[in-house]
Parts: sequence; C-alpha cells; structure tokens
Amino acid sequence: MPMVGRFLWACGRRAPPLNPPPKTAIIQNRIYGADMFRLYHLPLSPFCRKIRLVLAEKKIDVELVEEKYWEKRLDFLRLNPAGKVPVLRNGRFVLGESSAIFEYLEETHPEPALLPKDPAARAEARRLEGWFDDKFHHEVTANLVYERINKKLMGTGYPDSTKIKAGSKNIKYHLDYMGWLLDTRDWLAGNTMTIADFTAAAHLSTLDYVNDVDWLRNKNVKEWYARIKSRPSFRPLLADQVTGFVPPDHYADLDF
Amino acid sequence: MPMVGRFLWACGRRAPPLNPPPKTAIIQNRIYGADMFRLYHLPLSPFCRKIRLVLAEKKIDVELVEEKYWEKRLDFLRLNPAGKVPVLRNGRFVLGESSAIFEYLEETHPEPALLPKDPAARAEARRLEGWFDDKFHHEVTANLVYERINKKLMGTGYPDSTKIKAGSKNIKYHLDYMGWLLDTRDWLAGNTMTIADFTAAAHLSTLDYVNDVDWLRNKNVKEWYARIKSRPSFRPLLADQVTGFVPPDHYADLDF
Repeated sequence: MPMVGRFLWACGRRAPPLNPPPKTAIIQNRIYGADMFRLYHLPLSPFCRKIRLVLAEKKIDVELVEEKYWEKRLDFLRLNPAGKVPVLRNGRFVLGESSAIFEYLEETHPEPALLPKDPAARAEARRLEGWFDDKFHHEVTANLVYERINKKLMGTGYPDSTKIKAGSKNIKYHLDYMGWLLDTRDWLAGNTMTIADFTAAAHLSTLDYVNDVDWLRNKNVKEWYARIKSRPSFRPLLADQVTGFVPPDHYADLDF
Repeated sequence: MPMVGRFLWACGRRAPPLNPPPKTAIIQNRIYGADMFRLYHLPLSPFCRKIRLVLAEKKIDVELVEEKYWEKRLDFLRLNPAGKVPVLRNGRFVLGESSAIFEYLEETHPEPALLPKDPAARAEARRLEGWFDDKFHHEVTANLVYERINKKLMGTGYPDSTKIKAGSKNIKYHLDYMGWLLDTRDWLAGNTMTIADFTAAAHLSTLDYVNDVDWLRNKNVKEWYARIKSRPSFRPLLADQVTGFVPPDHYADLDF
C-alpha cells in the first residue's frame, strides 16, 4: 500500500536504530520544566497544530522549530525514530506521537483540563480525538492537504485528482457528523471544551488554509469553529504562512 | 489515496449520522459494570486483540461478538459510526477507538496497571502504543495481514505483491528496533509490562498467524514474545481459528 507522507522511515533508507534517544532521554532525565519546551513541527501538520493549541491553552512557553521530516535529518531521526512531527523536547526528555504528547501535557500541566473528570466523558473525548487523527485524517486531510501542499513541498509530484475528489466528498459526511454531535452538545465531546475540539479544529484549520471547507454546509460547525478560532491560542495558527501557498482571505478572519 | 480496510464508512454508502448512539449512551447511562461487557471484534484485528489482552489481564469478563465491519450492518454503524472494530459495550455505554477503550479500562479498572505511574514513563508506553497502532500498522500489518486475510474475507481480490514485499521488508526494521529497545529494557517501554507490550504483541500475533514473523531475526524479540505468549491472557488468541486460513504449527506453541 502506498505510504502517506507521515510513514517514511521504513520506505527509504534505514534510519535508526543507530544511536537512538528516547530511551536514555526518558530514563536518565527527570528535570521536567528545567528547560523551555521545544516543539519540532510543521505549520500545516494537524498533529502539530493540536499540540500547539494544547500548549497555548495551558500557557506553556514553547520554542517552535520547523522540521521537514522528509529530509530525514539524522539528528531528528535520533530524536524520533518514527521520523514524524510533532516531537516535544525539554532538555533530554524527548517525546513523539501527538496523542502521547497530549496525555503527557495533561498529566504534568493539568490546568486548564482538556479532558473531563468522568471516565465515560474522557473516553468520549479520546474517541473523537482518535476519530479525527485516524479516520478524518485518512479520509480527508491526507487526501486534500497532503496532496495539495506536502507533495509540492516534498517534490513528489502533483495532486492526484482521484484523491482530491475523494477528500472533497468525504469531508461533507464528516461535517454532517460534527453538526449532528453539536446539535445537542456545546462542544464536540459534550458540554465542556476538550481535546476533541482542538483535534478537530487542528485538522479543519489546515483544510481551511487550502480553502477546502464549505462553511455554509452546517451552521453548528461554523458557529463552533468561530468560537475556537477566536481563542487566543488559535492566533499563531492564523498567522502561519507557508511559502508558495496563500490562504484564502477568510482564513484568518474571525468573522468568516 | 486508497483506503485500507478500516476506513470504510465514507467510501461506501452514507451510514450514520442517522440514528446514532454513543452520545446518548454515554450521557444517559452510568451503570458501569451493571451488565457484562461485550466486545464487537474480529479475531485477527490487532486493535481488537490489544483490547482482548487488556480485558483478560484485568480479569474483566467479556462476551465476544464477531463483527464483519465491511458488511456495514446498520445496527453496528449505529453503535460506532466509524464502522470499525473494536467496539466495547456495556448496556447503553458504547465506546469505539482502541486507544480510548484502553484508557477507559485503565481508569475504571486500574489493577493491574498497564501504564506506569510516572508521567514520562507513561508517555513512553503511549508513544509505543502509537508506534505500533499507527506506524507499524501501516508499514507492516496492513501490508501483510490485510492483504493476505482481510481481502479474501471481504472478497476484494488477491494480495498485492508490491504490498507484501513492502511489508516483508518493513517488518525487519521494526523487529530490529524492538530488539534494540529490549537490549536495555525488560519490556518495550521500560522495566514494567505496559500497554506497549500488549499492543506490539497484538500486531505480531496476527502476523505470526500468517507466518510472517522471522523469529530467528532477533533473540531479544523472541524471548520477549515467549514471555508474553505464555501469559494466560494470551491463550484465547492462540486458540483463534479463521475459516480458510490455517496458522503455522508454531503459532500456538509456547516453545516456538
């Protein structure tokens, strides 16, 4: 099966295990917060945007470092043998996988909570985090954003029209599903704002950057996104600029 | 991009949102444990196997219900609009997404713990859970197990030799990585047994069913798998039989 952009390591040259890091990093170093957090990221990666939003909501200072993971920089592969962004680093503490990063931040910086207290409600928030990072990502984000942006950045060809068509069709069902959830809930996973909202907004914001969201399709979704978009944590995302790709005028507009 | 077997909903007919469940189920019903757990699953799904192992380790009784998700049974789509297995149900409480299910079980049935106490160690366990469920799954399991088994079960053609070749090549790097981790750790994520081990073992066990694991490649991995395989929680997996597919002799053998 063709690999999407995020799964590169095993397709190309053999990277680690050479001189690997997370192990020793995690075992030897416990100085959480001794240094400033650094996030290796890409501006239009929904997984990175999710973590940027979480960091900003929790008011954790972070230094952003852009990492073109497809260049397979050896020092980066030593940090994360998976070869993916985001990677969170704090001194010798290094962590990959956005859902693991989120849970770590939620445990070490509990305020404000982005998971509810009740186990069933937490489960619902995590179910939807998984929905967007897995199902939505494969059905929509990979088909649209990766085809339009990542391929050009990586120099791997032009967008595949079959995938664009599939992504454009799939997003409609997802917007409907979100709209249906929001019919009876203030936020996607219930009546409090959770990681589910930031995960969904992270994906939708990258799609909005390439103008692939029909905001007229569902008024619940538009109203929900307007609430998320107006949060201070969202501002840096709205200021992102990727060379060669101009977002539509409404992208950074709070009244879209 | 072509969809792998798990992402079916948006490719086919429109399923829910029609008469959906998780919302009301979760909000209205809190009688955890009032009924026996039921797991909608498939015997050779690594995500389902992960949850079966977690349930068994925590000694939670469960009724297994086989669900051929590709048949898109409407009652099943009402339980999980994502159209995927596993789905855990307990009366009106319904939950999809294997990582959300795991966290829910860990929170509601904390003994024995399958995550360490320390946030950094928990992060490492979750990082590796993500490694196997995302990277390993796309690079290995989908290329081998899905090609050999799911395609035949679903009647969608013959294994694609390019994918088989890719999966067979990729698994080597992953076994090396596991072996490297186990060089200095008793278990994959550290010195205690965690969800990382059960996630990895769930994937490897499905690959072993189709005889795609070279156990001679790395002695650390073989020794680790022998330890996991001999646990009582593993026995039901070793007894699984999928009609039309005979596992190799060593599959159920503790001394392989």
